[in-house]
Formats: sequence, structure tokens, C-alpha cells
Amino acid sequence: MCQPPAVGLSITLSVLAESADASAALVIPSSPVGSHTDIEAVRAFARECDVVTFDHEHVPAEVLAALEADGVILHPSRDALVFAQDKLAMRRRLTDIGIACPAWAQVRDAASLQAFGDEVGWPVIVKTPRGGYDGKGVRVVGSTDEVADWLSDAARDGVQGDVGQGSGPLVDGLLAEEKIDFVRELALLVVRSPSGQAGAWAVVETVQTAGICTQVLAPAPGLDPQLAAVATAAGLRIAGELGVTGVMAVEMFEVRDPDTGDPAYLVNELAMRPHNSGHWSIDGAVTSQFEQHLRAVLDLPLGDTSPRAPWTVMGNVLGGDHPQLYPTYRHLLARDPGLKIHLYGKGVRPGRKIGHVNVSGADLDDLRARASHASDFLQGVITQ
Amino acid sequence: MCQPPAVGLSITLSVLAESADASAALVIPSSPVGSHTDIEAVRAFARECDVVTFDHEHVPAEVLAALEADGVILHPSRDALVFAQDKLAMRRRLTDIGIACPAWAQVRDAASLQAFGDEVGWPVIVKTPRGGYDGKGVRVVGSTDEVADWLSDAARDGVQGDVGQGSGPLVDGLLAEEKIDFVRELALLVVRSPSGQAGAWAVVETVQTAGICTQVLAPAPGLDPQLAAVATAAGLRIAGELGVTGVMAVEMFEVRDPDTGDPAYLVNELAMRPHNSGHWSIDGAVTSQFEQHLRAVLDLPLGDTSPRAPWTVMGNVLGGDHPQLYPTYRHLLARDPGLKIHLYGKGVRPGRKIGHVNVSGADLDDLRARASHASDFLQGVITQ
Repeated sequence: MCQPPAVGLSITLSVLAESADASAALVIPSSPVGSHTDIEAVRAFARECDVVTFDHEHVPAEVLAALEADGVILHPSRDALVFAQDKLAMRRRLTDIGIACPAWAQVRDAASLQAFGDEVGWPVIVKTPRGGYDGKGVRVVGSTDEVADWLSDAARDGVQGDVGQGSGPLVDGLLAEEKIDFVRELALLVVRSPSGQAGAWAVVETVQTAGICTQVLAPAPGLDPQLAAVATAAGLRIAGELGVTGVMAVEMFEVRDPDTGDPAYLVNELAMRPHNSGHWSIDGAVTSQFEQHLRAVLDLPLGDTSPRAPWTVMGNVLGGDHPQLYPTYRHLLARDPGLKIHLYGKGVRPGRKIGHVNVSGADLDDLRARASHASDFLQGVITQ
Repeated sequence: MCQPPAVGLSITLSVLAESADASAALVIPSSPVGSHTDIEAVRAFARECDVVTFDHEHVPAEVLAALEADGVILHPSRDALVFAQDKLAMRRRLTDIGIACPAWAQVRDAASLQAFGDEVGWPVIVKTPRGGYDGKGVRVVGSTDEVADWLSDAARDGVQGDVGQGSGPLVDGLLAEEKIDFVRELALLVVRSPSGQAGAWAVVETVQTAGICTQVLAPAPGLDPQLAAVATAAGLRIAGELGVTGVMAVEMFEVRDPDTGDPAYLVNELAMRPHNSGHWSIDGAVTSQFEQHLRAVLDLPLGDTSPRAPWTVMGNVLGGDHPQLYPTYRHLLARDPGLKIHLYGKGVRPGRKIGHVNVSGADLDDLRARASHASDFLQGVITQ
């Protein structure tokens, strides 16, 4: 999705693709095949680039270290990226700089988890600090028994780590978090360039269905302006303090202050890359998150993040049972000429995120209905 | 410029590129090198495509005939494209279907040109029917002497044509046209799909400086609504009557009816492809001309042509004396974060069209000033 703005800006992309038929390889002429975990493949790739950036957070630390040792310019840097890779590091750092987070603890055994849960109230959220995505590596647990397997792994990995032998994913144990009784989920997209220019888009609402983000409403309807300002300031502060370069998504819970009842935020997760919660900006903002990410990592001046319309609704498209998208896609283009469809060129598998739609205008209810119809129709949940 | 919307629509493009470093080849993975005049190269290329379309009108008739004989699906078809390739054929056909044109005549010799000029008044416009572009193949002449060379060529090519030996560019002589005292130049972009769905964008004003289009104002400021409706109906009628598929630009003169003084149009030129006068739509319309052209030639349902903002101004960027664009480009991004820059990846040569800028908003004067500044600054006409 960086290729369309790269065409206009006359920026030449090269992608280290996981396979020759990867989505990005289908649309970018320079797309050598290699794994992000293969140090030599990544080093050879990076030698041909002016700047290297990432479309996910799972590049191993040793690969990043090798690139930095080679003098490769990485955006975000390894030092910043660790806070998107390691949730414990993120919680520790955000707490240090005074950003509002759910209550949390690093737990290595059942006793410490029990103590935390007894303090904040059960159930609690337990997360593996590294490697999770799209709900993987996260459990809501009513007792320590429900993460006995992870605790056992943590004990093993921790010992290996102690003797310098291992870097297992649970070497630092687990992250336990208070389960938040939130009003809704919000997301804030910010951007920061190496020279320190920064910007933010409007705070959006991310609508979740069964743990998956199904719709994004930009801006978040009815959001308290004071909360929007405070949350945006927090996002920009995180970007600055953590030395983030490029686009960063800050996923937040909207809550009520337990004392005053005023709207407040708690930071849930960070992603240091263009993010699903920012896909609305492709059609809904003067500068999309993908154009902005390119500008930022190249240290070019940043673009205007203003919305193009009063409302933009993004609907995620998940794969359904039918492998052929074309008939529904064609029908949908006919039904809604104002719909912007973005498909990723991925094979269709049930539940797999294969694209999204954007629709902009002045009537939020209408836009939500159109986005929902498009998502459901492309997935095959509805047939007309 | 078709690649960005193709990415979103998940349409795979392949381009027959004039060289490996052609603009399109830089951004489209499948880009075999070959000439549009090389029948075998074009045939081999077309065999791999579902649909073939064009980014200019200069593909020879014999190449088009070979493709049609091979069963290749061409949009626009050879029968339609001839009216964009041959200005005499275009004038004859438009006159037949009652579309308002300047007075015109086919002239093969000085005597017939003299008679035409004496009838409509000197100076007259003389055009070579084929092969002209960007002002080439067009002369404003005060006497037949000023096209003595063309008349001589026409006499020679006409004789060759008579004996079946040649297909010289002047085999049918020249097109002479009345020189129009116009109010301003307008352009209308329409689209038509093989199944007959059609649409039009707002009529725009094309601002010319020294014979080159420097700015496009969308929509045309202060355009009489009745004229806009009549001109749009004429454009859609042309598309239907000529069997156009894909995007067509209709360049028009705005004139005053000599009898009533009412605003009226005269058709100047046709282009059967996405056109410079429609570049504003990339950022200024819900569906750009490039997305729409892809939809149309694939016979997909057409998209919404509504504007995204009250005004969009497109400014063409011409090459200046300085071969390096980067320093000015960087400065411009910093100066105007709302500017959308589109560079074509072409080498910079003085006067060569190397890109364009779009800027949208509510204040037309402000937009025009910003677009002019950007064009002039990138060209090096101004230095800050």
C-alpha cells in the first residue's frame, strides 16, 4: 500500500518479499524473495536501499543489530522498535514517562500472577511480551491455571536466559494487565520524522467484533474535544520520547475517570508502522498514512493530515468460504459507485484479512451501513 | 498513473514499455520493452493480456488491425480510435452527428486552402490530420505560403495513396479550420464502458500559456450551468456515437453565440485516453480518470465522478534548466503540506512535462496561487 503514493512522489521501492506471489511483490518491480529472519538475506537486501523500514514488528533483534552494524539507516530504529516488539518494555517505558496505562505487572510464576490478580481483580489479561498479533498471545484468564502452559514456558525460558543460552519468547516472563471496563476503543495515528517533525491525524474509533477490528470511524463520533487533545498530546509525546520515526499507531481504551467520571484514555498497544486503524486515511485524509510513512522515513517534510470529508468509515474485508472474490467485487462496484475498494491480492481464506473498503461523506449512519454491507457482501455473510 | 488505482482494485497491469527506464516500467513489475510500431512485439505482448488499452493515440492502424485479427480485446477499438488519430475523420464524423465544431475543410492544395480562408477569414488554422501533439502539426497561417511545405508533402503523399503505395501522414491532405475568437478553453472528461455505462466529470477550464496547458481549474469557474449541461450531453453523445470505450477528453472552446450572445461551445480536439486535463481528478474526484479508465476497459461498473472539494487546481510541471528536482521538491513539500505532487520519473529537460501538482480547497484564488508557485518553483522560474 506504499506503492501508490511512491508512484506520485517518484520514490522507488524495493521489498524483501516472503514469496514471489506476496502482495507487495505483485506491484513493486524490485522484490527479491527472502525471509525477514535470514540475516544474510536481509543484509544483502538492505545494501541496495537508502533507507529500510518495516511492515511488521517481527524482525528479530539480531537481524536489526546486524543491519545497524552495517550502517544501514533503519526507521524506526532498533531502539524505538523494541517498544513495539516487546510489550513489557513498552509498559515499563510508558509508565516511566507518565502515560496512562492499565495497571500491569511482569509475572514469572503463578504466585506473582495470583498476587496481581488479587490486587486488580479477576479476570486479568495475560500477554506474551513478544510475537503476538491479531489476538494471538493474549488471554483473558480467571485463574492462574488458565496460563499454566505459558508460566511453565516462562520458567524454562527464564532459566535459559539466566545462563545466557536462550532468548526464548518468554525469557522475561509474562505481562499481566488489569482488564479494563472501557467505553470503547480508540486509535491515534501519529508520525514523526528523523529530524523531529511530527503530526497526528484525528483520533478514530475502532469498532471490534469478536476481538477483530471490523470498522474504523474517522473521526471518533462524539469524542470529547478535551480527551482528543490530551490523547493526541500523549501520542506525540510517546513518539518523541521513544524516538519513533515513521508512522505509529497508538491503540487506546476510552474510559471514565473513576473519581471524576470525566472521559480519559489508557494506552493499550503500540504499532510502529502504517496500521489497519489508519487505512481510512488513504481516501479520507489529504495525506495518507502510507504517503506519510514514506515522507517520514526519508526525512522529507510531512504532509497535511486534515480529513477530506466530515466522516470516513473503513470496513475490513475478511475472507469467506468462497475463494473467488470477483463476482461479488463486480456487484459491489455496481451497487455503490462511491465505495473505495482496496484488495490486497491475497488468496481468500476464511477469516483472513484480504482487503478493506473506505467510504466518505457527511452522513455517518449511511457510511457505516454501506461499509458494513460491503464487508459482509465480500465475505459472503450476506448474498445481496 | 494507472498503477496506483490498479493496486487498490487488485488489477495486474503489464506495459509494453519504450525502454527499460520508461516511467511506467519503473513502477509496474511486468514491463517488457518494445515499440508500439513493431507488430510482432505488440502481438506477443497482447497475447498475455486480457484487455489492451493505450496511453497515446499513435499506434499504427496496421498494428491495431493485426491485434483485432488475433482476437485481442482493444479498448478503445480501432474503429473508435481512428477519430482520435485522424483529425479529418473526427471533424467529418462530429459534423455528421451535429456536434458544434469550428468551420473546417479538407484541403489538398493552395487553391482550396485559399478559398477556405477567403470564406471564413484569415488567419486560419492548418493541421496535419495525423501524428500531431502538444502543438506540433498545427500552424496559424495568414496565407497559403506559410504551409507551402505541407501542401507539397500532401500532393506527394496523395499521389502515393492514389496508387496504393503509401500511407503518408498527409495522404488525405490537410485540415483547415476557422480561427476561433474564444472566451476560454474548456475540457470535458467522459467515460464509457463496453456495455454502454457512461459518466462525466465536471467541465473544467484549461488555462493555456504560450500554447501549453499550464493549469486546469475544476470545475470551470463561473461556467453557465446551461452550457455545462449542453457540453456534457455533447461529450456523452460523442462517446456513444463513436463507440468510445474508456476515458475520452473533449477539448472545447467557450464562445459566444454570434446571434444571441449566449455562451456556447465548439469542439476542438478529442483524446481517447486519460488526459492531462483530467489529472485534477486523481486527488479532486471520488474516482480518478485512471481508476475509471481501468474500470471501463475491463467493463467493470464505473465509479462516482463527484468532486471531493469545491475546487481543485492542477498545475503542470515543466522541466527547467536544472536536472536535479530533489532540492526544490523537498522545499516545496515543506512549504505546502497540502500540495499533492505527482512526478513522472522522467529525466528533466527544459519544457518537458515532468509532473503535475494538485491542490484542493474552497478558495480558488489561493489554490491557483499555490499551484502556480509550485509549478514555477519546480521549473526553476522562481527560486523561493
